[in-house]
Amino acid sequence: MRETTPKGLHRLAFGGDYNPEQWPESVWQEDVRLMREAGVTMVSVGIFSWALLEPEPGTYDFGWLDRILDLLHENDVRVDLGTPTVAPPAWFYRAHPEALPVSREGVRYSYGSRGAICHSSPAYREAAARITTQLARRYATHPALALWHVHNEYGVPVSACYCDTCADGFRRWLDARHGSVEAVNEAWGTAFWGQHYTSYEQIDPPRLTPTVGNPAQQLDYRRFADATMRENFRAERDVLHRLSPGVPVTTNFMTALSQSDSVDYWAWGREVDLVTNDHYLITDGRRTHVNLAMAADLTRSVAGGAPWLLLEHSTSGVNWQPRNPAKRPGEMARNSLAHVARGSEGAMFFQWRQSRRGAEKFHSSMVPHAGTDSRVWREVVRLGADLDSLAGLRGTRTVPDVAMVWDWHSWWAQSLEWRPTEDHEARERADAFYETLYDRHLTVDFAHPEADLSAYPLVVVPALYLTTEAAGRNLREYVENGGTLVVSYFSGIVDEHDAVHPGAYPGALRDVLGLTVEEWSPLGEGESVRITGPDGASLTGDVWTEFVVERGARPVWTYADGPAAGRPAVTRHRLGEGTAWYVSTRLDTASLDVILSAACEDAGIEPRVELPRDVEVVRRSGDGGDFLFALNHTAHDVKVPLESPGTELLGGEHAAGHLPVPAGSVRVVRLDA
Amino acid sequence: MRETTPKGLHRLAFGGDYNPEQWPESVWQEDVRLMREAGVTMVSVGIFSWALLEPEPGTYDFGWLDRILDLLHENDVRVDLGTPTVAPPAWFYRAHPEALPVSREGVRYSYGSRGAICHSSPAYREAAARITTQLARRYATHPALALWHVHNEYGVPVSACYCDTCADGFRRWLDARHGSVEAVNEAWGTAFWGQHYTSYEQIDPPRLTPTVGNPAQQLDYRRFADATMRENFRAERDVLHRLSPGVPVTTNFMTALSQSDSVDYWAWGREVDLVTNDHYLITDGRRTHVNLAMAADLTRSVAGGAPWLLLEHSTSGVNWQPRNPAKRPGEMARNSLAHVARGSEGAMFFQWRQSRRGAEKFHSSMVPHAGTDSRVWREVVRLGADLDSLAGLRGTRTVPDVAMVWDWHSWWAQSLEWRPTEDHEARERADAFYETLYDRHLTVDFAHPEADLSAYPLVVVPALYLTTEAAGRNLREYVENGGTLVVSYFSGIVDEHDAVHPGAYPGALRDVLGLTVEEWSPLGEGESVRITGPDGASLTGDVWTEFVVERGARPVWTYADGPAAGRPAVTRHRLGEGTAWYVSTRLDTASLDVILSAACEDAGIEPRVELPRDVEVVRRSGDGGDFLFALNHTAHDVKVPLESPGTELLGGEHAAGHLPVPAGSVRVVRLDA
Amino acid sequence: MRETTPKGLHRLAFGGDYNPEQWPESVWQEDVRLMREAGVTMVSVGIFSWALLEPEPGTYDFGWLDRILDLLHENDVRVDLGTPTVAPPAWFYRAHPEALPVSREGVRYSYGSRGAICHSSPAYREAAARITTQLARRYATHPALALWHVHNEYGVPVSACYCDTCADGFRRWLDARHGSVEAVNEAWGTAFWGQHYTSYEQIDPPRLTPTVGNPAQQLDYRRFADATMRENFRAERDVLHRLSPGVPVTTNFMTALSQSDSVDYWAWGREVDLVTNDHYLITDGRRTHVNLAMAADLTRSVAGGAPWLLLEHSTSGVNWQPRNPAKRPGEMARNSLAHVARGSEGAMFFQWRQSRRGAEKFHSSMVPHAGTDSRVWREVVRLGADLDSLAGLRGTRTVPDVAMVWDWHSWWAQSLEWRPTEDHEARERADAFYETLYDRHLTVDFAHPEADLSAYPLVVVPALYLTTEAAGRNLREYVENGGTLVVSYFSGIVDEHDAVHPGAYPGALRDVLGLTVEEWSPLGEGESVRITGPDGASLTGDVWTEFVVERGARPVWTYADGPAAGRPAVTRHRLGEGTAWYVSTRLDTASLDVILSAACEDAGIEPRVELPRDVEVVRRSGDGGDFLFALNHTAHDVKVPLESPGTELLGGEHAAGHLPVPAGSVRVVRLDA
Repeated sequence: MRETTPKGLHRLAFGGDYNPEQWPESVWQEDVRLMREAGVTMVSVGIFSWALLEPEPGTYDFGWLDRILDLLHENDVRVDLGTPTVAPPAWFYRAHPEALPVSREGVRYSYGSRGAICHSSPAYREAAARITTQLARRYATHPALALWHVHNEYGVPVSACYCDTCADGFRRWLDARHGSVEAVNEAWGTAFWGQHYTSYEQIDPPRLTPTVGNPAQQLDYRRFADATMRENFRAERDVLHRLSPGVPVTTNFMTALSQSDSVDYWAWGREVDLVTNDHYLITDGRRTHVNLAMAADLTRSVAGGAPWLLLEHSTSGVNWQPRNPAKRPGEMARNSLAHVARGSEGAMFFQWRQSRRGAEKFHSSMVPHAGTDSRVWREVVRLGADLDSLAGLRGTRTVPDVAMVWDWHSWWAQSLEWRPTEDHEARERADAFYETLYDRHLTVDFAHPEADLSAYPLVVVPALYLTTEAAGRNLREYVENGGTLVVSYFSGIVDEHDAVHPGAYPGALRDVLGLTVEEWSPLGEGESVRITGPDGASLTGDVWTEFVVERGARPVWTYADGPAAGRPAVTRHRLGEGTAWYVSTRLDTASLDVILSAACEDAGIEPRVELPRDVEVVRRSGDGGDFLFALNHTAHDVKVPLESPGTELLGGEHAAGHLPVPAGSVRVVRLDA
Repeated sequence: MRETTPKGLHRLAFGGDYNPEQWPESVWQEDVRLMREAGVTMVSVGIFSWALLEPEPGTYDFGWLDRILDLLHENDVRVDLGTPTVAPPAWFYRAHPEALPVSREGVRYSYGSRGAICHSSPAYREAAARITTQLARRYATHPALALWHVHNEYGVPVSACYCDTCADGFRRWLDARHGSVEAVNEAWGTAFWGQHYTSYEQIDPPRLTPTVGNPAQQLDYRRFADATMRENFRAERDVLHRLSPGVPVTTNFMTALSQSDSVDYWAWGREVDLVTNDHYLITDGRRTHVNLAMAADLTRSVAGGAPWLLLEHSTSGVNWQPRNPAKRPGEMARNSLAHVARGSEGAMFFQWRQSRRGAEKFHSSMVPHAGTDSRVWREVVRLGADLDSLAGLRGTRTVPDVAMVWDWHSWWAQSLEWRPTEDHEARERADAFYETLYDRHLTVDFAHPEADLSAYPLVVVPALYLTTEAAGRNLREYVENGGTLVVSYFSGIVDEHDAVHPGAYPGALRDVLGLTVEEWSPLGEGESVRITGPDGASLTGDVWTEFVVERGARPVWTYADGPAAGRPAVTRHRLGEGTAWYVSTRLDTASLDVILSAACEDAGIEPRVELPRDVEVVRRSGDGGDFLFALNHTAHDVKVPLESPGTELLGGEHAAGHLPVPAGSVRVVRLDA
Repeated sequence: MRETTPKGLHRLAFGGDYNPEQWPESVWQEDVRLMREAGVTMVSVGIFSWALLEPEPGTYDFGWLDRILDLLHENDVRVDLGTPTVAPPAWFYRAHPEALPVSREGVRYSYGSRGAICHSSPAYREAAARITTQLARRYATHPALALWHVHNEYGVPVSACYCDTCADGFRRWLDARHGSVEAVNEAWGTAFWGQHYTSYEQIDPPRLTPTVGNPAQQLDYRRFADATMRENFRAERDVLHRLSPGVPVTTNFMTALSQSDSVDYWAWGREVDLVTNDHYLITDGRRTHVNLAMAADLTRSVAGGAPWLLLEHSTSGVNWQPRNPAKRPGEMARNSLAHVARGSEGAMFFQWRQSRRGAEKFHSSMVPHAGTDSRVWREVVRLGADLDSLAGLRGTRTVPDVAMVWDWHSWWAQSLEWRPTEDHEARERADAFYETLYDRHLTVDFAHPEADLSAYPLVVVPALYLTTEAAGRNLREYVENGGTLVVSYFSGIVDEHDAVHPGAYPGALRDVLGLTVEEWSPLGEGESVRITGPDGASLTGDVWTEFVVERGARPVWTYADGPAAGRPAVTRHRLGEGTAWYVSTRLDTASLDVILSAACEDAGIEPRVELPRDVEVVRRSGDGGDFLFALNHTAHDVKVPLESPGTELLGGEHAAGHLPVPAGSVRVVRLDA
């Protein structure tokens, strides 16, 4: 039985990446003093320390790390200890230039930044195993050790390498997946454009070609690259499990769709002992708290609903966006507690002390350049105290309302070239469906297309272009058994090899939706169409239209103009005990809400009319009790209705009836049993 | 005497690219059944089949091709048989990686897409000759064979390779063209920036340089790349002529300026037995039928006015644009018959059956994913019937009204860096002049600048930046002998080496235009100027202004503001029996029409006042009779005046006086003799 | 004692780049005749002539150069003789392909353009020394020789090469700068992201990395690249000094921030005998005469206030902008005389005769394609006469009013990736501060941050992100001693290694400004904030806001909204005898003028209320007299007040009281002593 919670950590995790090697040891004493002041419970150490720990091949210098771990232990700070394998030393690269990754265009990257790794490289694998083994041996029983942190953010900044070593690995991976070259030819449709192969040796990574390459080859290469990184993670994890039993192993994910698209977290979630995640706000004018909630829900779903841990976020601005605003007062706490509400067992940051040098010196930290006489520091101290008061919710689980189907493989396939319109993006539809559900105050679980959906009254499926036959059956059974399903256009089109399902679109979903699509006709830039529905209501769609043929479904909304004028735009299909909706054009969130409102009615989900927009209410529940989080993202004081009375934990007061939540604040009520 | 019409084809060509290798043989039977249903008369086979026909070097598998050709023959479908040399097999590339093309930046492309060919490669040439020879030997006398289809769309997706083999080839080509290194230095003006060469061996392709390279070198390299492809075409053609006499040889052009800029079709038109063309609508919001008409007119001109064949277009949407709308009902037929009106002996498609896999599976087809219960299929069947009723016009020729001078070499030169303004584009001016003439219901022949123009009452010359002295003389003689000429700015500037003609601009056209240009002054982004003309009329120009000095010409329009205020903007020069107009600023089509209207008056061309906008009327005439095509691109029913009565062939009814043409429809009247 | 004025040139320099090798010798006679007609006094010869002078390695052909120098001498035209080292011959590249520069991505550039040079290449250095020695030996005593012109525009088009030879050179340079690898680690902060080096051999140029590279490494590499070019300049200069004593040596700078960012002209200014500059108008809609004045002021400052020479500008349009308008009538003269007003001892052009061939054939020239019957030629002749009448001002110096601190190293550091907002650009702030001062009719000296500023009543500091401790002390002392300082946001942040100064921002400037900045918060795209100040006035800022904490300074303007609402926006700090202003948001020039107006009051600078906008008044003064330049850039006649009467030199008339300056004209008055 694997450990799944940081060893010896009996509070919520609070702290950050701690890089003492950037500072003279004289600063360390101030660091631990301030950590105590802020109530820091855990820090992540050593993530980029390989060059210092192994300054020459096979020569190790653990002295400074010993000292810092002892010092942290003395100060009651638990340690999330990194294997530094994301940052091989310069001497390694000089000895093994072939371990540097190569771009699609054949450019070999240089080191001197970070993450320059060909994950197929035997030399890299060997060196990584060696340093990991050394670390595991030395610190397996260190009293500060709470968690192993393998590598860093697999998948960025290099999502795939195209070197010859990878080419060899790809051929072996293909053989394992397809069994024969002929099967590869069939799966990839190499008859098109005369790409037939007669031996594995003829197959290369999808390098730069004069025009678009084979889409199935590209899709398989993304799978191969993901699997190769996962193989390397497993190798390190197994070393740690063997040498350091009882200490859970993680690697920090970046589940937010805005931050990584190269990793299949459904697969990775099964590999780690504890799911951890890094999340950063994208401040592009959209509602950052919605994106945050989505990432947190996705992380929890990847963890199978179990508690997880936010391992990195920022106290204030980041440094890598085009424009990096500071967080507003209270925003850091709202962000942190929103993650906790959605399953995180704490809130950690990149990083503890703001660097004076390097590429990220303008990234905010817990101890900013301005020092402790600063708003950021005061809010850090306050957050430490707040998290301390929430220790009781450890182990409880977030309570979901509905599910959204999501699949990285479908996303990858959908992002390949020469799709019907570049205005369509899978992620945009996922974001829009999520935001609509968020605004209905529904907590969303994400689900793999082939996962059991029977627990959910409502399941939404935004743009599941790649839908396997099994997934199609799964969705059909879900509806037949009484579920309510909402599917967007460009779903059910291809199988796992990016091959169009035989017959009319949407091949894998024709039956459940009760319709076929004769042809689609994407709209021009800026074009829109009007659709009309019940009671003469009218909505506007854009980007996509198509020619839907009813085959069981009934039209609820109809195109009033555009290429498909007079044809069904939104349909509803009664099947077995359930209902399946289909939305054939792109609706913005306000319009989508009209459709989802009707679907919620089908699903028996009541609208939460009392909650104002941008007031987030989420529950965690379990043996530890029943906790209601109320996060007020607005500039107005609000009141949130309580189902039962309880104790507000951040203020320690009794709460009943309508809970006042001041503008920008968070309240957490432990409901009376 | 070469054959110029598909052997054994006694109807108009109707069909498409047929790729039976993408389907199990069980589908083939359905294919031929549906071909019969649709009236398919010819299909293109084998274009991408090299890897299947020669699975190992020197080992051939013709069995499946034998069977499909026999099956087609049994079903009365003629075959346009491809040499598959656009798609070398993987084994070939593994043996000859040097046959992969290299970009300007030195990146060698990979295979696994299509068209990855260095046309200078001896290994490629040899392998191509071998498979072509094999095919020619085996099928020379096959009863299904109607036409040889060499390669595919020369010039895309790689317009030029920059490898060392090409460097050698370029040096030989330079010697053949210039005769000595000193002559190259002189032609290229290497004295500028100290680029003098003392041996051919020092000369490279115009690879990536820190700033702009020598323009004449770049221009010569485009010529070399084009000539090298043409050499390879000739090599295959000669094999086919030798082994398969009596069967015409073609290669499919892409004459539309929107689709290829790398091939000098004036030169290619002289090499093929039958000019064939691929044409796809660009749906960027502009009028697609105008672009189509222009491409068709250009194709016919490249064929010297003789009938040609539309070898590829689409039944509905394509897949490679940013946004790919479906065609509207009736649009496919209008497109097809517009090509026929302008000289095509049929209408063929890419492709017969929509692929399930590969890069183009979302490209529409004759048999779409939705199958035969679809609008597309019903319109295909209808088109087959319509074309069948037009068989009588085979061999007739489209009747032109006016000519436009066009030259790919001038286009190439004009597209080089560091021109006066990036807002000027040769193609834009050609499009604008064409569209203006189209809207005057004039059928346009394109002409090489040195071609005999005496047959045309009006010749327009949009932005002929590169004008040889011979071309200048030709245009002058045309005017002196009574022609009416309209020339736009940035014409007559350089000679064939991109060297400015000595003296004031426009060197090669000063005499015929009766003016010099002291200097030009392109306008800023969004800037415009007003020009005033007869009766106080006023028009707006943009992009370009210049300081015209009259030297015989008289100003008809004058700049009212801008850098050249008070100077001539549009001039008219009486010379000999004719008249030469000059337009020194960029006018949009509406404004250009005012100038062309006056020029038409000079040329004695009467306005076709009865025809509404977007109703296209074109005539084909010849031994087979006199055929009037009326295509109504509008949403309103119209009537088209008939000069003489006749028989409407698509409906079979008598037509006289004013021919009703319903919205979106086409009518073809065989006029009574 | 080095010579600092062109030998034997007793008038202002007037002429241009003269490339006789582009023309048959028959044209040369016309050239010198026209030079005499235009009053040409000096031409630049041979800049790109290497391939002709040394057609084979070690074989020289000086005949044509002898002839042209003799001809020029006979015609009283002085020669600025180029060392042709910017244009190595093709044979050199064939023998030394390693001398071609390599891009960050590892692409080796090709020759056939210009400036393709790896400045670290020993082969290049040797070949350059050889041809320079040959030229120096042959022409040291030629009577036409006035000035040596080394190379051409160092820094463009290749600002840095990333090849292995450069890598070696970089390591040596690092050792010389830092003294040890450990010192490099410390300076670069390699502890961040685990980039520690244990030997120089491990250090590479900052080549392409998967994400951003080490910023200090990048900054040092720009320094190395600049130093390497300077080393090559020095090598040629020393040859010339040795072999050709008494003839000054220059290389043409491109000081305009719009034209080069790769050269530290503070350092270069110390190396040349005479500062010369190339300047071209950027016609992007902004006021070209302001940009010109700024470049001229910067050039003079780089020359330490001494006279300098404008070696290249254009008679009319250039050819390398997106859009290249012609100059308006009179504009060339205004441009030329504006340079003279600000310290240039003449006005020279690229180029004498417009090329027929090559990449710049559409660049205007003194003798245009249109020949001498042209506006350009007439204006050239007129300018020659005007310059002739100004010969008396040789040796006088432009009189500055205020200073602006500028540092290329700070600009480089500020341009690295991952800064707080991409909307901030150091150059934009410098432009805005300059333009505001220009519109107050103040003549600006530029100053290095560590230079003596005591002579200036007002010093402005736009975005001096990199501020050494020494610079911080310098600015503090300047204020303490009575100066008035205006500093913009994002100043004083990092030291010379791009390391954040310890403590709160702005580390190096906290004391002098009397404040700290807790954190900044850049604004979103299109966002703005309002700031309110004295008497309820209100201004608008954008791009940048921050949280200023007063520590001695007093707020003069306060944020009325935005992230920092209620906090100080613009502060004033009395320190010692002086005053320091701080501007914490981006103000446009109109708003900035409000702040600078108050600062001018502090500095005792009176507003020049009588001068209308876009009328430029500048003084040169010295032993030769006191010269007032009045340039009217407007379309209206104006009158400029004269402090004392004098003689208008271009018209030769007496001037007193208010000097009339017609629209678009220039007047130069020699004030009576």
